[in-house]
Amino acid sequence: MSELKLIPARHGVADRMKKGQTLKVINTFGQQVIDFWAFAANDMNEYMSMHHTHAALLKIIPTVGDTLVTTKRRDIMTIIEDTTPGIHDTLMPSCDRYRYEQLGCTEYHMNCKDNLEVALDKIDVERLVHPAPLNLFMNIPVSPTDNNSIKWDGCPAGVGEYITLRAEMDCIVAFSSCPQDIVPINGPNCEIQDTHYLIEG
Amino acid sequence: MSELKLIPARHGVADRMKKGQTLKVINTFGQQVIDFWAFAANDMNEYMSMHHTHAALLKIIPTVGDTLVTTKRRDIMTIIEDTTPGIHDTLMPSCDRYRYEQLGCTEYHMNCKDNLEVALDKIDVERLVHPAPLNLFMNIPVSPTDNNSIKWDGCPAGVGEYITLRAEMDCIVAFSSCPQDIVPINGPNCEIQDTHYLIEG
Repeated sequence: MSELKLIPARHGVADRMKKGQTLKVINTFGQQVIDFWAFAANDMNEYMSMHHTHAALLKIIPTVGDTLVTTKRRDIMTIIEDTTPGIHDTLMPSCDRYRYEQLGCTEYHMNCKDNLEVALDKIDVERLVHPAPLNLFMNIPVSPTDNNSIKWDGCPAGVGEYITLRAEMDCIVAFSSCPQDIVPINGPNCEIQDTHYLIEG
Repeated sequence: MSELKLIPARHGVADRMKKGQTLKVINTFGQQVIDFWAFAANDMNEYMSMHHTHAALLKIIPTVGDTLVTTKRRDIMTIIEDTTPGIHDTLMPSCDRYRYEQLGCTEYHMNCKDNLEVALDKIDVERLVHPAPLNLFMNIPVSPTDNNSIKWDGCPAGVGEYITLRAEMDCIVAFSSCPQDIVPINGPNCEIQDTHYLIEG
């Protein structure tokens, strides 16, 4: 029985998927970036890799029909539907305590890197590495000049828009409703929102 | 006493650097891509990260004056000189056995991923992760259209051209004279060449 599950604002969640199941990731209230990771169920050292996906797809932004691959260049997730403007990011790392320290935070700030760790702990999975995520709905435009300069831009995903991916292997997935409220990637008001996901099939 | 050291064609080499030392990486015979890694000397879990460097520099291709950073967002390497056309890559992973299998190789093919492992073994360092490298002299142009499509292009570095970097912390560095001789990233004749490096200061 499929069930809509919550990714609480500023927090992470992990789950398990079987090959062939689909995953709908929903931008419930709009303008919210979600860091997304996937690991091979039987080997946490094999994970969805943005670098290997660049080599497989020969593009920076994956789109409907594209299959993301692991560090062993095996298919792990195929994008089968996307009702958002199709803007996702494969260039940026998760936010982490070091990032917030550099942004001037003097106290602990929730962050996607720690969120992954906590989320995996909760399903009793030991994290071995911290892969760069697929930053769903994140807007990092690339300039053709200035050594391909990039910038942080606002998340264009609208209320209730979603992306659907199919698991190409048994895997562990994890999400973080990105707590970045200093740089306006989650909309100009820097409001952090709940998001949801649905595993079916 | 500084000494010109060999990175044999198709092979990897690792070495140690002190903070403040400079590293000259030389494209001795031209058109040869070199995979380059750097790790914090006291913690192999902290390493030069292309994703974190994207966030720090807000560009895909680092250039003279730019400082590459680690997974803890600390400065590790600054580019202080570059006599090549300034084309380097931060998007692609190292080649590996899986890549060559997909390209049709039925027997073992030398590859940059294994080269890193062997090179670190030789200086008695245990590798914990396999970071995406800074692909020195590698030419991966990014299109402003087609979801930022990218392609493999020929290495533009000329005979004897070099890049010089300064270590911003004590670190372990590693190189691989990339053995890719199927896709023509190392020039149209797919010849793999020796390269050299020099640590000074």
